[in-house]
Amino acid sequence: MTRIITISREFGSGGRELGKRLADALGIPCYDHEIIQMIAKENGFDERYVANMSEKSIEAAYPLTIGHRFSMPPVPVMEQPIRVAVAQREILESFARKGDCVIVGRCADVILKEYHPLNIFVYANMDAKIARCQERAPEGENLTRKELERRIRQVEKGRRQFREMYSEVKWGDKEAYDLCINTSGREIKKLIPALVELVNCWFAAEEQ
Amino acid sequence: MTRIITISREFGSGGRELGKRLADALGIPCYDHEIIQMIAKENGFDERYVANMSEKSIEAAYPLTIGHRFSMPPVPVMEQPIRVAVAQREILESFARKGDCVIVGRCADVILKEYHPLNIFVYANMDAKIARCQERAPEGENLTRKELERRIRQVEKGRRQFREMYSEVKWGDKEAYDLCINTSGREIKKLIPALVELVNCWFAAEEQ
Repeated sequence: MTRIITISREFGSGGRELGKRLADALGIPCYDHEIIQMIAKENGFDERYVANMSEKSIEAAYPLTIGHRFSMPPVPVMEQPIRVAVAQREILESFARKGDCVIVGRCADVILKEYHPLNIFVYANMDAKIARCQERAPEGENLTRKELERRIRQVEKGRRQFREMYSEVKWGDKEAYDLCINTSGREIKKLIPALVELVNCWFAAEEQ
Repeated sequence: MTRIITISREFGSGGRELGKRLADALGIPCYDHEIIQMIAKENGFDERYVANMSEKSIEAAYPLTIGHRFSMPPVPVMEQPIRVAVAQREILESFARKGDCVIVGRCADVILKEYHPLNIFVYANMDAKIARCQERAPEGENLTRKELERRIRQVEKGRRQFREMYSEVKWGDKEAYDLCINTSGREIKKLIPALVELVNCWFAAEEQ
Protein backbone atom coordinates (compact mmCIF):
# COMPACT_ATOMS: atom_id res chain seq x y z
CA MET A 1 0.00 0.00 0.00
CA THR A 2 1.26 3.44 -0.92
CA ARG A 3 1.99 5.58 2.09
CA ILE A 4 0.74 9.06 1.44
CA ILE A 5 1.02 11.57 4.24
CA THR A 6 -0.70 14.92 3.86
CA ILE A 7 0.22 17.91 5.97
CA SER A 8 -2.28 20.70 6.43
CA ARG A 9 -1.06 23.54 8.57
CA GLU A 10 -1.70 26.87 10.16
CA PHE A 11 0.54 29.66 8.88
CA GLY A 12 3.65 29.86 11.05
CA SER A 13 3.05 26.53 12.80
CA GLY A 14 6.06 24.83 11.22
CA GLY A 15 3.96 22.43 9.17
CA ARG A 16 6.12 22.80 6.10
CA GLU A 17 9.29 22.07 8.09
CA LEU A 18 7.56 19.12 9.73
CA GLY A 19 6.55 17.71 6.35
CA LYS A 20 10.04 18.11 4.92
CA ARG A 21 11.78 16.58 7.93
CA LEU A 22 9.30 13.71 8.12
CA ALA A 23 9.80 12.91 4.44
CA ASP A 24 13.59 13.02 4.86
CA ALA A 25 13.43 10.71 7.86
CA LEU A 26 11.22 8.29 5.92
CA GLY A 27 13.37 8.56 2.81
CA ILE A 28 10.46 9.60 0.60
CA PRO A 29 9.82 12.76 -1.44
CA CYS A 30 8.07 15.80 -0.01
CA TYR A 31 5.98 17.83 -2.45
CA ASP A 32 5.37 21.39 -1.47
CA HIS A 33 6.23 24.34 -3.67
CA GLU A 34 6.87 21.92 -6.55
CA ILE A 35 3.11 21.60 -6.94
CA ILE A 36 2.70 25.31 -7.58
CA GLN A 37 5.62 25.30 -9.99
CA MET A 38 4.18 22.41 -11.96
CA ILE A 39 0.70 23.89 -12.16
CA ALA A 40 2.16 27.19 -13.29
CA LYS A 41 4.45 25.61 -15.84
CA GLU A 42 1.93 23.28 -17.37
CA ASN A 43 -0.67 25.98 -17.79
CA GLY A 44 1.55 28.90 -18.57
CA PHE A 45 0.44 30.74 -15.42
CA ASP A 46 2.59 32.89 -13.21
CA GLU A 47 3.68 31.09 -10.03
CA ARG A 48 2.59 33.97 -7.82
CA TYR A 49 -0.84 33.80 -9.37
CA VAL A 50 -1.16 30.07 -8.70
CA ALA A 51 0.18 30.41 -5.16
CA ASN A 52 -2.26 33.19 -4.44
CA MET A 53 -5.24 31.61 -6.06
CA SER A 54 -5.01 28.28 -4.42
CA GLU A 55 -5.09 29.79 -0.99
CA LYS A 56 -8.48 31.28 -1.78
CA SER A 57 -11.85 30.14 -2.93
CA ILE A 58 -12.66 30.34 -6.63
CA GLU A 59 -14.79 33.43 -6.10
CA ALA A 60 -12.13 35.21 -4.08
CA ALA A 61 -9.55 34.40 -6.71
CA TYR A 62 -11.22 36.27 -9.54
CA PRO A 63 -10.07 39.78 -8.71
CA LEU A 64 -6.47 38.55 -8.72
CA THR A 65 -6.70 37.78 -12.38
CA ILE A 66 -7.54 41.32 -13.29
CA GLY A 67 -5.00 44.05 -13.53
CA HIS A 68 -1.97 41.89 -12.88
CA ARG A 69 1.21 43.00 -14.55
CA PHE A 70 2.51 39.65 -15.68
CA SER A 71 1.20 38.43 -18.99
CA MET A 72 -1.69 36.01 -18.74
CA PRO A 73 -2.02 32.97 -20.95
CA PRO A 74 -4.73 32.77 -23.59
CA VAL A 75 -7.23 31.25 -21.17
CA PRO A 76 -10.36 33.27 -20.50
CA VAL A 77 -10.11 34.98 -17.09
CA MET A 78 -13.16 33.19 -15.69
CA GLU A 79 -11.73 29.79 -16.50
CA GLN A 80 -8.34 30.24 -14.93
CA PRO A 81 -9.15 29.23 -11.38
CA ILE A 82 -10.84 26.09 -12.66
CA ARG A 83 -7.79 25.27 -14.76
CA VAL A 84 -5.63 25.63 -11.67
CA ALA A 85 -7.93 23.36 -9.66
CA VAL A 86 -7.96 20.72 -12.39
CA ALA A 87 -4.19 20.86 -12.82
CA GLN A 88 -3.76 20.60 -9.07
CA ARG A 89 -5.88 17.46 -8.85
CA GLU A 90 -4.05 15.86 -11.76
CA ILE A 91 -0.64 16.65 -10.32
CA LEU A 92 -1.55 15.39 -6.84
CA GLU A 93 -2.85 12.16 -8.36
CA SER A 94 0.30 11.73 -10.40
CA PHE A 95 2.37 12.06 -7.19
CA ALA A 96 0.17 9.54 -5.41
CA ARG A 97 0.56 7.07 -8.25
CA LYS A 98 4.34 7.45 -8.20
CA GLY A 99 4.60 6.07 -4.66
CA ASP A 100 5.11 6.99 -1.01
CA CYS A 101 5.28 10.72 -0.37
CA VAL A 102 4.52 13.63 1.90
CA ILE A 103 2.35 16.40 0.44
CA VAL A 104 2.15 19.80 2.11
CA GLY A 105 -1.05 21.77 1.72
CA ARG A 106 -3.26 22.04 -1.37
CA CYS A 107 -6.17 20.04 0.10
CA ALA A 108 -4.35 16.81 -0.70
CA ASP A 109 -6.14 15.19 2.25
CA VAL A 110 -9.47 15.54 0.46
CA ILE A 111 -8.35 15.32 -3.15
CA LEU A 112 -6.44 12.08 -2.53
CA LYS A 113 -9.04 10.59 -0.20
CA GLU A 114 -9.25 7.39 -2.23
CA TYR A 115 -5.59 6.71 -1.58
CA HIS A 116 -6.32 6.58 2.17
CA PRO A 117 -3.65 9.05 3.19
CA LEU A 118 -2.56 9.69 6.76
CA ASN A 119 -3.78 13.24 7.28
CA ILE A 120 -1.90 15.41 9.74
CA PHE A 121 -2.86 18.92 10.80
CA VAL A 122 -0.15 21.10 12.33
CA TYR A 123 -1.16 24.06 14.48
CA ALA A 124 0.14 26.38 17.19
CA ASN A 125 -1.02 29.27 19.31
CA MET A 126 -0.81 32.80 17.89
CA ASP A 127 2.26 33.78 19.95
CA ALA A 128 4.18 30.76 18.70
CA LYS A 129 3.16 31.45 15.11
CA ILE A 130 4.19 35.09 15.30
CA ALA A 131 7.54 34.13 16.87
CA ARG A 132 8.15 31.62 14.10
CA CYS A 133 7.29 34.13 11.37
CA GLN A 134 9.63 36.68 12.96
CA GLU A 135 12.50 34.17 13.11
CA ARG A 136 12.06 33.30 9.48
CA ALA A 137 11.28 36.72 8.07
CA PRO A 138 13.27 37.57 4.94
CA GLU A 139 15.89 40.23 5.52
CA GLY A 140 14.45 43.70 5.45
CA GLU A 141 10.93 42.59 6.39
CA ASN A 142 10.06 44.26 9.64
CA LEU A 143 6.40 43.62 10.25
CA THR A 144 5.02 44.47 13.67
CA ARG A 145 3.33 41.79 15.78
CA LYS A 146 0.00 43.24 14.81
CA GLU A 147 0.81 43.15 11.11
CA LEU A 148 2.05 39.59 11.38
CA GLU A 149 -1.07 38.52 13.22
CA ARG A 150 -3.20 40.09 10.50
CA ARG A 151 -1.20 38.31 7.83
CA ILE A 152 -1.48 34.95 9.60
CA ARG A 153 -5.24 35.34 9.90
CA GLN A 154 -5.50 36.37 6.28
CA VAL A 155 -3.56 33.38 4.95
CA GLU A 156 -5.52 31.02 7.16
CA LYS A 157 -8.79 32.52 6.02
CA GLY A 158 -7.69 31.86 2.46
CA ARG A 159 -6.86 28.24 3.24
CA ARG A 160 -10.21 27.81 4.95
CA GLN A 161 -12.04 29.21 1.92
CA PHE A 162 -9.99 27.17 -0.53
CA ARG A 163 -10.86 23.98 1.33
CA GLU A 164 -14.56 24.76 1.10
CA MET A 165 -14.37 23.92 -2.59
CA TYR A 166 -13.55 20.35 -1.67
CA SER A 167 -15.19 19.42 1.57
CA GLU A 168 -17.94 20.21 4.01
CA VAL A 169 -15.67 19.47 6.93
CA LYS A 170 -13.94 22.73 7.69
CA TRP A 171 -10.23 23.41 7.39
CA GLY A 172 -8.64 22.91 10.80
CA ASP A 173 -11.57 20.98 12.30
CA LYS A 174 -9.92 17.96 13.88
CA GLU A 175 -12.63 15.69 12.43
CA ALA A 176 -11.02 16.11 9.02
CA TYR A 177 -7.65 14.73 10.12
CA ASP A 178 -6.15 11.61 11.64
CA LEU A 179 -3.72 13.46 13.83
CA CYS A 180 -3.48 17.07 14.94
CA ILE A 181 -0.29 18.27 16.49
CA ASN A 182 0.28 21.46 18.43
CA THR A 183 3.80 22.76 17.87
CA SER A 184 3.64 25.74 20.27
CA GLY A 185 6.97 25.95 22.05
CA ARG A 186 8.23 22.80 20.34
CA GLU A 187 11.23 22.13 18.18
CA ILE A 188 9.88 20.38 15.10
CA LYS A 189 12.87 18.12 14.65
CA LYS A 190 12.41 16.61 18.11
CA LEU A 191 8.96 15.37 17.12
CA ILE A 192 10.12 13.52 14.02
CA PRO A 193 11.15 10.15 15.54
CA ALA A 194 7.66 9.79 17.05
CA LEU A 195 6.00 10.72 13.78
CA VAL A 196 8.11 8.22 11.85
CA GLU A 197 7.00 5.55 14.31
CA LEU A 198 3.41 6.69 13.90
CA VAL A 199 3.58 6.47 10.11
CA ASN A 200 4.97 2.96 10.43
CA CYS A 201 2.27 1.87 12.91
CA TRP A 202 -0.44 3.47 10.81
CA PHE A 203 0.30 1.84 7.49
CA ALA A 204 1.34 -1.49 9.01
CA ALA A 205 -2.13 -1.68 10.54
CA GLU A 206 -3.75 -0.80 7.20
CA GLU A 207 -2.03 -3.70 5.51
CA GLN A 208 -3.54 -6.28 7.81
CA MET B 1 10.61 16.41 35.31
CA THR B 2 7.46 14.49 36.10
CA ARG B 3 5.80 13.08 33.00
CA ILE B 4 2.08 13.57 33.31
CA ILE B 5 -0.05 12.56 30.37
CA THR B 6 -3.71 13.52 30.36
CA ILE B 7 -6.24 11.83 28.13
CA SER B 8 -9.46 13.61 27.25
CA ARG B 9 -11.78 11.65 25.04
CA GLU B 10 -15.01 11.42 23.17
CA PHE B 11 -17.36 8.73 24.44
CA GLY B 12 -16.70 5.51 22.54
CA SER B 13 -13.44 6.70 20.99
CA GLY B 14 -11.27 4.27 22.93
CA GLY B 15 -9.57 6.98 24.97
CA ARG B 16 -9.73 5.00 28.17
CA GLU B 17 -8.18 1.95 26.52
CA LEU B 18 -5.52 4.14 24.96
CA GLY B 19 -4.67 5.68 28.33
CA LYS B 20 -4.44 2.29 30.03
CA ARG B 21 -2.32 0.74 27.29
CA LEU B 22 -0.02 3.75 27.08
CA ALA B 23 0.53 3.71 30.85
CA ASP B 24 1.26 -0.04 30.75
CA ALA B 25 3.74 0.43 27.92
CA LEU B 26 5.46 3.24 29.82
CA GLY B 27 5.38 1.31 33.08
CA ILE B 28 3.56 4.06 34.95
CA PRO B 29 0.16 4.14 36.70
CA CYS B 30 -3.04 5.07 34.91
CA TYR B 31 -5.67 6.83 37.00
CA ASP B 32 -9.19 6.58 35.74
CA HIS B 33 -12.07 5.24 37.80
CA GLU B 34 -9.82 5.37 40.90
CA ILE B 35 -10.34 9.12 40.97
CA ILE B 36 -14.10 8.73 41.31
CA GLN B 37 -13.67 6.07 43.97
CA MET B 38 -11.34 8.25 45.99
CA ILE B 39 -13.55 11.33 45.79
CA ALA B 40 -16.54 9.26 46.81
CA LYS B 41 -14.74 7.56 49.67
CA GLU B 42 -13.13 10.64 51.13
CA ASN B 43 -16.35 12.60 51.12
CA GLY B 44 -18.81 9.87 51.89
CA PHE B 45 -20.53 10.31 48.52
CA ASP B 46 -21.99 7.58 46.36
CA GLU B 47 -19.72 6.70 43.42
CA ARG B 48 -22.55 6.97 40.93
CA TYR B 49 -23.26 10.45 42.17
CA VAL B 50 -19.65 11.52 41.74
CA ALA B 51 -19.38 9.91 38.32
CA ASN B 52 -22.54 11.61 37.18
CA MET B 53 -21.78 14.97 38.64
CA SER B 54 -18.33 15.36 37.30
CA GLU B 55 -19.54 14.90 33.76
CA LYS B 56 -21.78 17.91 34.15
CA SER B 57 -21.45 21.54 35.11
CA ILE B 58 -22.11 22.53 38.69
CA GLU B 59 -25.53 23.91 37.79
CA ALA B 60 -26.54 20.83 35.87
CA ALA B 61 -25.44 18.66 38.76
CA TYR B 62 -27.87 20.06 41.30
CA PRO B 63 -30.96 18.10 40.39
CA LEU B 64 -29.00 14.87 40.77
CA THR B 65 -28.60 15.53 44.45
CA ILE B 66 -32.32 15.60 45.02
CA GLY B 67 -34.44 12.54 45.25
CA HIS B 68 -31.65 10.02 44.96
CA ARG B 69 -32.22 6.82 46.87
CA PHE B 70 -28.75 6.36 48.32
CA SER B 71 -28.11 8.10 51.57
CA MET B 72 -26.38 11.43 51.23
CA PRO B 73 -23.67 12.59 53.60
CA PRO B 74 -24.23 15.45 56.00
CA VAL B 75 -23.10 18.05 53.49
CA PRO B 76 -25.68 20.63 52.46
CA VAL B 77 -27.03 19.80 48.98
CA MET B 78 -25.83 23.05 47.47
CA GLU B 79 -22.28 22.46 48.61
CA GLN B 80 -21.89 18.95 47.31
CA PRO B 81 -20.77 19.72 43.77
CA ILE B 82 -18.18 22.14 45.10
CA ARG B 83 -16.92 19.49 47.52
CA VAL B 84 -16.55 17.08 44.63
CA ALA B 85 -14.65 19.66 42.58
CA VAL B 86 -12.32 20.48 45.47
CA ALA B 87 -11.69 16.80 46.21
CA GLN B 88 -11.02 16.16 42.55
CA ARG B 89 -8.40 18.88 42.35
CA GLU B 90 -6.71 17.68 45.52
CA ILE B 91 -6.62 14.08 44.33
CA LEU B 92 -5.29 15.00 40.89
CA GLU B 93 -2.55 17.07 42.50
CA SER B 94 -1.64 14.24 44.84
CA PHE B 95 -1.24 11.94 41.82
CA ALA B 96 0.90 14.51 40.04
CA ARG B 97 3.17 14.88 43.06
CA LYS B 98 3.61 11.12 43.31
CA GLY B 99 5.30 10.90 39.91
CA ASP B 100 4.83 9.96 36.27
CA CYS B 101 1.29 8.92 35.38
CA VAL B 102 -1.52 8.87 32.84
CA ILE B 103 -4.80 10.47 33.92
CA VAL B 104 -8.00 9.80 32.00
CA GLY B 105 -10.65 12.51 31.97
CA ARG B 106 -11.68 14.82 34.83
CA CYS B 107 -10.20 17.96 33.26
CA ALA B 108 -6.74 16.96 34.46
CA ASP B 109 -5.28 18.86 31.49
CA VAL B 110 -6.50 22.16 32.95
CA ILE B 111 -6.35 21.35 36.65
CA LEU B 112 -2.74 20.18 36.43
CA LYS B 113 -1.64 22.87 34.00
CA GLU B 114 1.26 23.92 36.21
CA TYR B 115 2.77 20.46 35.92
CA HIS B 116 3.05 20.94 32.14
CA PRO B 117 1.31 17.72 31.17
CA LEU B 118 1.23 16.29 27.67
CA ASN B 119 -2.44 16.66 26.80
CA ILE B 120 -3.94 14.18 24.37
CA PHE B 121 -7.46 14.26 22.97
CA VAL B 122 -8.88 11.04 21.54
CA TYR B 123 -11.79 11.22 19.11
CA ALA B 124 -13.54 9.26 16.38
CA ASN B 125 -16.40 9.61 13.97
CA MET B 126 -19.92 8.74 15.14
CA ASP B 127 -20.03 5.39 13.31
CA ALA B 128 -16.80 4.26 14.93
CA LYS B 129 -17.99 5.36 18.35
CA ILE B 130 -21.30 3.54 18.01
CA ALA B 131 -19.51 0.39 16.81
CA ARG B 132 -17.17 0.54 19.78
CA CYS B 133 -20.03 1.02 22.24
CA GLN B 134 -21.88 -1.93 20.70
CA GLU B 135 -18.82 -4.19 20.97
CA ARG B 136 -18.36 -3.31 24.60
CA ALA B 137 -22.00 -3.19 25.71
CA PRO B 138 -22.67 -5.10 28.91
CA GLU B 139 -24.65 -8.28 28.38
CA GLY B 140 -28.35 -7.64 28.08
CA GLU B 141 -27.92 -4.03 26.92
CA ASN B 142 -29.43 -3.77 23.49
CA LEU B 143 -29.55 -0.13 22.63
CA THR B 144 -30.39 0.81 19.05
CA ARG B 145 -27.97 2.87 16.99
CA LYS B 146 -30.15 5.89 17.56
CA GLU B 147 -30.24 5.36 21.31
CA LEU B 148 -26.48 4.92 21.39
CA GLU B 149 -25.94 8.06 19.38
CA ARG B 150 -28.17 9.99 21.77
CA ARG B 151 -26.24 8.61 24.72
CA ILE B 152 -22.88 9.49 23.19
CA ARG B 153 -24.03 13.04 22.52
CA GLN B 154 -25.40 13.34 26.04
CA VAL B 155 -22.20 12.18 27.73
CA GLU B 156 -20.12 14.45 25.53
CA LYS B 157 -22.38 17.39 26.27
CA GLY B 158 -21.81 16.70 29.95
CA ARG B 159 -18.06 16.63 29.50
CA ARG B 160 -18.19 19.87 27.56
CA GLN B 161 -20.21 21.57 30.29
CA PHE B 162 -18.02 20.18 33.04
CA ARG B 163 -14.93 21.60 31.36
CA GLU B 164 -16.48 25.04 31.21
CA MET B 165 -15.95 25.30 34.96
CA TYR B 166 -12.21 25.22 34.36
CA SER B 167 -11.38 26.79 31.05
CA GLU B 168 -12.53 29.14 28.36
CA VAL B 169 -11.06 26.88 25.70
CA LYS B 170 -13.79 24.43 24.87
CA TRP B 171 -13.69 20.68 25.43
CA GLY B 172 -12.58 19.02 22.23
CA ASP B 173 -11.19 22.19 20.61
CA LYS B 174 -7.77 21.13 19.38
CA GLU B 175 -6.25 24.35 20.74
CA ALA B 176 -6.63 22.93 24.25
CA TYR B 177 -4.45 19.90 23.54
CA ASP B 178 -0.97 19.01 22.39
CA LEU B 179 -2.07 16.10 20.28
CA CYS B 180 -5.44 14.98 18.95
CA ILE B 181 -5.77 11.49 17.59
CA ASN B 182 -8.60 10.11 15.50
CA THR B 183 -9.16 6.43 16.28
CA SER B 184 -11.89 5.78 13.66
CA GLY B 185 -11.23 2.37 12.19
CA ARG B 186 -8.05 1.95 14.22
CA GLU B 187 -6.94 -0.67 16.68
CA ILE B 188 -5.80 1.26 19.73
CA LYS B 189 -2.99 -1.12 20.60
CA LYS B 190 -1.32 -0.59 17.24
CA LEU B 191 -0.93 3.11 18.00
CA ILE B 192 0.85 2.58 21.32
CA PRO B 193 4.47 2.24 20.13
CA ALA B 194 4.22 5.59 18.34
CA LEU B 195 2.66 7.24 21.38
CA VAL B 196 5.39 5.87 23.65
CA GLU B 197 7.96 7.37 21.30
CA LEU B 198 6.04 10.64 21.31
CA VAL B 199 5.96 10.78 25.11
CA ASN B 200 9.71 10.18 25.16
CA CYS B 201 10.40 12.88 22.54
CA TRP B 202 8.08 15.31 24.28
CA PHE B 203 9.54 15.17 27.76
CA ALA B 204 13.14 14.79 26.58
CA ALA B 205 12.70 18.11 24.76
CA GLU B 206 11.21 19.72 27.87
CA GLU B 207 14.27 18.82 29.92
CA GLN B 208 16.67 20.69 27.68
